[in-house]
Amino acid sequence: MSERNIVLVDPLPRTLDLIMEPDVRARLDRLGEVIVLQEQPMSGDQVDALLADTVLIFGQTDMPRARLDRAPKLKAIINVESNFMPNIDYQACVERGIWVITPASAFSSPVAEASLGMAIDLARGITIADRQFRNGVEEYGLAGNMDTFRYAGAPIGIIGFGDLGKELRELTRPFKNEVHVYDPWLPKEIVERLDCVPSALDDVFSKCRVVYVFASVTSENQGFIGKPQFDLMQPGSAFLLMSRAAVVDFPAMLNAVKSGHIRAATDVFPDEPVAADDPVRSIPGLLLSAHRSGGTRDAFYQLGAMAVADAELIMKGLPPQLCRRADPATASRLRSKPVSVS
Amino acid sequence: MSERNIVLVDPLPRTLDLIMEPDVRARLDRLGEVIVLQEQPMSGDQVDALLADTVLIFGQTDMPRARLDRAPKLKAIINVESNFMPNIDYQACVERGIWVITPASAFSSPVAEASLGMAIDLARGITIADRQFRNGVEEYGLAGNMDTFRYAGAPIGIIGFGDLGKELRELTRPFKNEVHVYDPWLPKEIVERLDCVPSALDDVFSKCRVVYVFASVTSENQGFIGKPQFDLMQPGSAFLLMSRAAVVDFPAMLNAVKSGHIRAATDVFPDEPVAADDPVRSIPGLLLSAHRSGGTRDAFYQLGAMAVADAELIMKGLPPQLCRRADPATASRLRSKPVSVS
Amino acid sequence: MSERNIVLVDPLPRTLDLIMEPDVRARLDRLGEVIVLQEQPMSGDQVDALLADTVLIFGQTDMPRARLDRAPKLKAIINVESNFMPNIDYQACVERGIWVITPASAFSSPVAEASLGMAIDLARGITIADRQFRNGVEEYGLAGNMDTFRYAGAPIGIIGFGDLGKELRELTRPFKNEVHVYDPWLPKEIVERLDCVPSALDDVFSKCRVVYVFASVTSENQGFIGKPQFDLMQPGSAFLLMSRAAVVDFPAMLNAVKSGHIRAATDVFPDEPVAADDPVRSIPGLLLSAHRSGGTRDAFYQLGAMAVADAELIMKGLPPQLCRRADPATASRLRSKPVSVS
Amino acid sequence: MSERNIVLVDPLPRTLDLIMEPDVRARLDRLGEVIVLQEQPMSGDQVDALLADTVLIFGQTDMPRARLDRAPKLKAIINVESNFMPNIDYQACVERGIWVITPASAFSSPVAEASLGMAIDLARGITIADRQFRNGVEEYGLAGNMDTFRYAGAPIGIIGFGDLGKELRELTRPFKNEVHVYDPWLPKEIVERLDCVPSALDDVFSKCRVVYVFASVTSENQGFIGKPQFDLMQPGSAFLLMSRAAVVDFPAMLNAVKSGHIRAATDVFPDEPVAADDPVRSIPGLLLSAHRSGGTRDAFYQLGAMAVADAELIMKGLPPQLCRRADPATASRLRSKPVSVS
Repeated sequence: MSERNIVLVDPLPRTLDLIMEPDVRARLDRLGEVIVLQEQPMSGDQVDALLADTVLIFGQTDMPRARLDRAPKLKAIINVESNFMPNIDYQACVERGIWVITPASAFSSPVAEASLGMAIDLARGITIADRQFRNGVEEYGLAGNMDTFRYAGAPIGIIGFGDLGKELRELTRPFKNEVHVYDPWLPKEIVERLDCVPSALDDVFSKCRVVYVFASVTSENQGFIGKPQFDLMQPGSAFLLMSRAAVVDFPAMLNAVKSGHIRAATDVFPDEPVAADDPVRSIPGLLLSAHRSGGTRDAFYQLGAMAVADAELIMKGLPPQLCRRADPATASRLRSKPVSVS
Repeated sequence: MSERNIVLVDPLPRTLDLIMEPDVRARLDRLGEVIVLQEQPMSGDQVDALLADTVLIFGQTDMPRARLDRAPKLKAIINVESNFMPNIDYQACVERGIWVITPASAFSSPVAEASLGMAIDLARGITIADRQFRNGVEEYGLAGNMDTFRYAGAPIGIIGFGDLGKELRELTRPFKNEVHVYDPWLPKEIVERLDCVPSALDDVFSKCRVVYVFASVTSENQGFIGKPQFDLMQPGSAFLLMSRAAVVDFPAMLNAVKSGHIRAATDVFPDEPVAADDPVRSIPGLLLSAHRSGGTRDAFYQLGAMAVADAELIMKGLPPQLCRRADPATASRLRSKPVSVS
Repeated sequence: MSERNIVLVDPLPRTLDLIMEPDVRARLDRLGEVIVLQEQPMSGDQVDALLADTVLIFGQTDMPRARLDRAPKLKAIINVESNFMPNIDYQACVERGIWVITPASAFSSPVAEASLGMAIDLARGITIADRQFRNGVEEYGLAGNMDTFRYAGAPIGIIGFGDLGKELRELTRPFKNEVHVYDPWLPKEIVERLDCVPSALDDVFSKCRVVYVFASVTSENQGFIGKPQFDLMQPGSAFLLMSRAAVVDFPAMLNAVKSGHIRAATDVFPDEPVAADDPVRSIPGLLLSAHRSGGTRDAFYQLGAMAVADAELIMKGLPPQLCRRADPATASRLRSKPVSVS
Repeated sequence: MSERNIVLVDPLPRTLDLIMEPDVRARLDRLGEVIVLQEQPMSGDQVDALLADTVLIFGQTDMPRARLDRAPKLKAIINVESNFMPNIDYQACVERGIWVITPASAFSSPVAEASLGMAIDLARGITIADRQFRNGVEEYGLAGNMDTFRYAGAPIGIIGFGDLGKELRELTRPFKNEVHVYDPWLPKEIVERLDCVPSALDDVFSKCRVVYVFASVTSENQGFIGKPQFDLMQPGSAFLLMSRAAVVDFPAMLNAVKSGHIRAATDVFPDEPVAADDPVRSIPGLLLSAHRSGGTRDAFYQLGAMAVADAELIMKGLPPQLCRRADPATASRLRSKPVSVS
């Protein structure tokens, strides 16, 4: 067997500079012979020429079973985009002991922070009050709080209780909310350990004044939040869509906001970028965010740091600790659209 | 001595209905013979006619020494406006064992919550991004985060570490900020117990990415935050004025924002309501709030509940536990303008 | 008026070296002309000769009204023993604006820590299991846990919710107990803010598996915990007496332990030192502590540091922040025995 | 293929009644046709007769590759003893997509709780003081604290940062210790996220006043804590051995305690039960616990509840969430002795 140990870096739509600061890049170099192609996705030929000596792949390279067969030294495929896609034979990787992992939780911290900020904004009317002030129609004191509610102590709901949902749960602790969680992939014990109440989907909507959506898109849950759920919400409540547009019936959400029934914030849209004349731009009760709550500079660097730290463990024969693993059973159900920009 | 035990309620600018829910109002009635005048402040004659039998005053009635001399049964004066004013002879009250207290901390929780929401807004650009989206100039992903910073982990500063400052400190715990505190009335031990760093005023400004101002106005501190302090701030940092406009050189603050050096949020203004043509209304980097972050319905009810709970203790010969006490030494230094509206 | 500003130090049963490390001692010296007498309590004559120029007293000097009349410059009396005693005219101090304070909460931290350690010990049988092991009768695994219960999640009760009770409450947070509090001097709001349940005395005993007693002795509460309360406890529950023996019917407590109904720990005894032949020494279910849970070296230094820090504030015309104030209404009800040793 | 779906229960040294309360047992029955053999370990013949239809195994059954080949429907092997042993072909399980998991963390909560209790005991001298009191040689107040230190604020060290180490870390939060962690299997990010300091082994010993050992035994770490480490400890410090005796040079530990250099607590011994005449029974500075800190009734029930909850997920095609997974790379390095009693 060749003495070469190739670390293949095929990071698009990310770039190495985006995701690794110099010290992390230096650690990457110590893992093997680093070969980067980031002007365009690696071609099949390029990949194939290197596979025999490749030990690590950082990127979203297609890896069907046939190609895995030609990579006898491969130890891990580390997705740096953050969504597992169907271009890998996950079962074949498991059989060969190849880790398939992604440092997706790098985005949890910035999204959770922005989510809490937006939730307080919706509850207390911060952006709306600023807009009124600019328009000369502000109201002072109690009169300025007629349509608001206190975030502290309000029952809140979390839909999707992965790293991001758990991070939000920790951020909201000082506010002493009752926290209802809906996540069909988790046993109740996981929810209860973090002092939350496992709840049915409809109960989350009927009981909570603030509902956060952090759920991934799967083959089964597209549009699972729609008019029935919005109708269940108490008037004036707040809805935050922070993960993927496809889990929500988007027009139903907009209708619920336009009618004045609820207020909402959304970081995602069915089509991005949003068309210049999309009427979504002028709905008063909607707080608009252009898919920007996760993509902070520190999050991209964190992505790279987590990827390299776990690669280091894997090269020592230890299991990864920071990245999420692609369980074949669930990876094959995921249906997130890949991001087109960082 | 008469058998009457009068509870004098002179609450303007508050009203009883504003500050007491029915159950609290019922507890008030059990404290004595309740006499309310809230169409206008009680006249001196009205007060004088009742003083001989008054055991409790809820309100901001003038109480000079001569009048205190005519109130032999008086046990407490409970200010329900929330600022101690110079219309009471505090030393005379102390000598007579009359408690002078105020449930001002009822406003701490809503103000702290709104402050954190606004701080995350400034750090992450939430309101600005919403405005850009409405104007069709939004930026997606990393491009939308060029002028932002992460609130989590950023060094933050708190100016004024009373109930409100401490409440904010608790709300920010999950974000793991290094917290610098400036409060010249407190020993360092109080600051350190809450895991904060006692700091000089200028150090707070030079080191922190977010500076919260919660300081009361005193005879000594008017305008103590001005151009020198804003100049010390790192570019793009966030300044939040949540207590009283008079502690800041307001024009200097506006200049620092207009120049693009910092972003700011303010809940208070030198003159309220703000004039329709005040240029403050159109400064892009300023998050505007019309003195509305404390005045939530629950806060006013909390004000009344705290006042009555402490009155109950006092009538049992026990010290109050919830309200702030007017220490003569400090009460005489306070210079807050009374509120004109609730 | 003389130019002298005397700081009178009359600390017995403490000594200056016990309560002040060199840096704190140096701060004391900056407060005025320090005169210390600690070989014996200051005589009346000694005190009287200095009173005219005394600004601060650190100690437990008798201060009746007549003597206060001769101390025109006195600003504060700082009790460094930690229990307010009836040798001061508290009302006269209030009238003159003289602070009477004590840094008693210096002992809260070590006592709370020891209390939690002893509570876990009683719940999990730590000391008893060690004794069994030494006697060759240890049981392994589940068999060794037949008489134990989990501290985590057990309902606990706190009797007396001052600094110490609150400190214990914070230490126990990670164990997620339901916490019941009985304190007749506090409104329910104080209890609820710390996520505890205000409870009647008997409910604390019937509901809780662990009951901590931190109550001070007053003119009204001697022996208020007795056979009726112990009978209400669930078999095998744990009782911890950490404040003063006089609040408990001590023989009733010993009987409840001797009968095997409950386990208990006590840091205090009706008479200290305990007689050599006192049968208390051989009760198997009793964890014995010789009034040592508060008296750690760091606590005594903390006592001095708090005293000096508050004295510094008082000399600047500011209110003390660290020490407890002697409210005349409650100070006159206290009945703790002074300590005889440190 | 047969319609039978067998759930094979081969739990020794556990029994079903030990680990499952009735409601959990009922859930087990809903998973398939439950076949239990717990009078003795299942014989190879018994297992082989059932394998063709077995979907789940609860127990420690030998599962070499040949046997796995005969179990086409097998989805998971759930070890209910809690230590992975070398009687399973872990790689073969991975290749077949068979989960091998264990609810070992069921013991984390009781062990962490007992560990903290014992650490406070060692720091504050609780058991020793009780023994002195029984022997009539107790010391009161400060004199009784000459050999103690405050647990609060003391630097502490954690060796082995799995579920148990992390649980202890959470329990100790209110004490505000600086926490040093040594765990060669983890990247520093995992340690830092929980506000701990990743540290070299020797630094943990030289810097910390309390060192907790929670490390598993592996093929590489037997006796890795010995005389050099104990010599590094500051005099009077506390050492707690809570995981496995084999990770420590046990005689060296005893010598360090006997010499008075440190105090220690141990829940484990090289040979259990300990011989009646073992001199370990009479070392004054050693707190003795007969492998009983984890084996509480609730922990065994928790073990069964976690096993069943994860089995439910697996039967739905979802990944387990509560149990630890046997990564082939690490499972093959583990060398814990199986427990002989529950």
